[in-house]
Amino acid sequence: MKISTLSIGDELIYGEVADTNSARIAASLYDLGLKVRQHLLVGDDLGAIVDALEILATGSDVLVVTGGLGPTGDDLTAQAAAAATGQELLLNEEALAAMQAFVGREGGEFMAATRRQALLPAGCTLIPNPTGTASGFILTLNGCYLLFLPGVPSEMIRMLDGTVLPFIRERFVKKVVIGTKVFTTFGIAEAEMDRVMGDLPDSNAGLALAFRVSFPTIDLKLRGEGDTAAGVAELLAGAAATVRQRLGEFIVAEAGATLDDEVARLFRETGVTISLAESCTGGLIAKRLTDCAGSSAYFLEGAVVYSNGAKHRLLGVPEKMILQHGAVSAEVAEAMAQGERLAAGSDIALAVTGVAGPGASEEKPAGMVFIALADGEGCQVREYGFSGDREQVRTLTAVTALDWLRRYLLTR
Amino acid sequence: MKISTLSIGDELIYGEVADTNSARIAASLYDLGLKVRQHLLVGDDLGAIVDALEILATGSDVLVVTGGLGPTGDDLTAQAAAAATGQELLLNEEALAAMQAFVGREGGEFMAATRRQALLPAGCTLIPNPTGTASGFILTLNGCYLLFLPGVPSEMIRMLDGTVLPFIRERFVKKVVIGTKVFTTFGIAEAEMDRVMGDLPDSNAGLALAFRVSFPTIDLKLRGEGDTAAGVAELLAGAAATVRQRLGEFIVAEAGATLDDEVARLFRETGVTISLAESCTGGLIAKRLTDCAGSSAYFLEGAVVYSNGAKHRLLGVPEKMILQHGAVSAEVAEAMAQGERLAAGSDIALAVTGVAGPGASEEKPAGMVFIALADGEGCQVREYGFSGDREQVRTLTAVTALDWLRRYLLTR
Repeated sequence: MKISTLSIGDELIYGEVADTNSARIAASLYDLGLKVRQHLLVGDDLGAIVDALEILATGSDVLVVTGGLGPTGDDLTAQAAAAATGQELLLNEEALAAMQAFVGREGGEFMAATRRQALLPAGCTLIPNPTGTASGFILTLNGCYLLFLPGVPSEMIRMLDGTVLPFIRERFVKKVVIGTKVFTTFGIAEAEMDRVMGDLPDSNAGLALAFRVSFPTIDLKLRGEGDTAAGVAELLAGAAATVRQRLGEFIVAEAGATLDDEVARLFRETGVTISLAESCTGGLIAKRLTDCAGSSAYFLEGAVVYSNGAKHRLLGVPEKMILQHGAVSAEVAEAMAQGERLAAGSDIALAVTGVAGPGASEEKPAGMVFIALADGEGCQVREYGFSGDREQVRTLTAVTALDWLRRYLLTR
Repeated sequence: MKISTLSIGDELIYGEVADTNSARIAASLYDLGLKVRQHLLVGDDLGAIVDALEILATGSDVLVVTGGLGPTGDDLTAQAAAAATGQELLLNEEALAAMQAFVGREGGEFMAATRRQALLPAGCTLIPNPTGTASGFILTLNGCYLLFLPGVPSEMIRMLDGTVLPFIRERFVKKVVIGTKVFTTFGIAEAEMDRVMGDLPDSNAGLALAFRVSFPTIDLKLRGEGDTAAGVAELLAGAAATVRQRLGEFIVAEAGATLDDEVARLFRETGVTISLAESCTGGLIAKRLTDCAGSSAYFLEGAVVYSNGAKHRLLGVPEKMILQHGAVSAEVAEAMAQGERLAAGSDIALAVTGVAGPGASEEKPAGMVFIALADGEGCQVREYGFSGDREQVRTLTAVTALDWLRRYLLTR
């Protein structure tokens, strides 16, 4: 079973827009146990598209094509598909009716140019587009199924999930049930995770494992396949238990949730309120805590205290302490957290001070960061030495702080 | 002149890692006036790589290949190159010496596995790698130059700029001088920009123009080519003057700088100090203002005031005002900016309050945002109705605020 993909568009081939469609298609097929053999990008050039269709169809069982189905003169995919398969381009009444119905639902006006999108190769089978005017379609060439989808990612995804994946599944992955389970981890390197989990995949049992780095977190994905849903569920549950046992505290979220989602969930669940005092992260932790809708229920306020004056006035950090230990010190981090908690009246307060770089001294190197967490029982301070450029140090500081909040809230 | 590119790696084809190399190569070639005809991705599969090399070489003058030159068993590019060109794989003494010299400079130990990276097709020409152990190399196949580079982006870029682009330029863009100029714009739609600037490109004069959307800003890139450096400089200067005249205030930065860079530059230049009071953006504006190293010179402090209590206590916004007008109102935005400016003792203060969504009312729809800017002479408030999801509304609010600061500082 050989699958190839083809993305069409000048903007993709000139690097103006990243081609996210091919990655989404490959990831969805991987979940079905299928691997894409090759992926080709070509520009809006009729000859190049026809060549690409012929070459890829010859070596593949399925070819998924995205892009070039729009209403403008640059959109040449239907014409190329007709040429490659030796069919005529005809006005497809079914596509036209679907288009008119969509425009009617949206309350828009049917533009003459849109009509061009109903000119499709004779004999094709339509792929319905519930969220746009461009119908997709299916043809065959040299025994290969050609599946054409529009390039707009939101439309493409709906049509992929709704029609294309079931189509492929029915023909090429019959009688097999597939399930996946994702864990997001932080604080453990990919090589170490591979060492710890390397014995888990078991092709005989139908269990596979993949890592995906998304700095600074790493996703671990389990894929199980078998004859019955119950069997696959059992297989995945067993593997998930092993993952939880071996990675334990390094798992920051499950089932596709992010660390930030999990922290938000824990705040909602525990009812704990928080305030922040940030120096080197400059508002990044507040930004991430408030990315989640509904965060106003637990996030009271944040102070971005870049200047020493602000640290003193807003948080009550003694000026003498800053002079004696420096703004980047365990003492100041603790005073910031305690001061912020008192001022805001929150259950807990988290403070960070550090050197994001560049411009560090020998005593206080770039990447030196103090994080403090104060609650009703006291205050803990931790010192870190992060590597990377300014942006990486700030990101690592924020994620480390969020992970500390996660671990703290789990014990409440 | 036909150019194709090929990226090799399972992680690319399964969508685990985005292929940024092909976009960088395409953009650099575009600057030379050359367009990539097709771009192919294949996995770490010997047969697939050999097929890809043969197919692409047949239709191209130049094929740039990235990836698969590492030291592990998955790295099959050199072997595939040898098979496709009918050459033997031999230990390349020059590559081995370069590798040993690099490892020596880095103070590392030469691993046996690394030696495998010096097994290259007989008769190839090396492409030096100043920052890694994997040498690149050049072969020819059916009249096509095959240029092989490692997949690590930082190494790939050095070798592309240092060797590959000069190689291509010398052979295919002889006697032509090429220059580019980039403008970053905000607040004008791509279609409108196309309408206003559409008459500028002039292929006879050697002047081209491209847009690149990077939400919510759009870059406009001029490319000029001619026989002499002075002629190209003059051509670009004339076109740049037209761009500045027509787009004026919508140009937020030039020469590859970002809006954030430009705002930082203006703060440094004017010596104005700023403080922030953020509600719906939750620290995002503070984060962006402090992304630039050296921001502590002008950024004094920021208050992330999610709760009404914090708005009152930190900024002195009257509780009665919040009750009467709501937290999302022009009155509260103004009081936040004035209160923050007084508290921080900064020259200017910027405040935002709005509905990022979801969870809006009919009176205060998602996307309704007030931004206020206070200085020694008073306070201005502006109301916006932004479209998009929570993240887009927050990004648009931050960029609109930063653009306002830019325009304000330009008049100081």
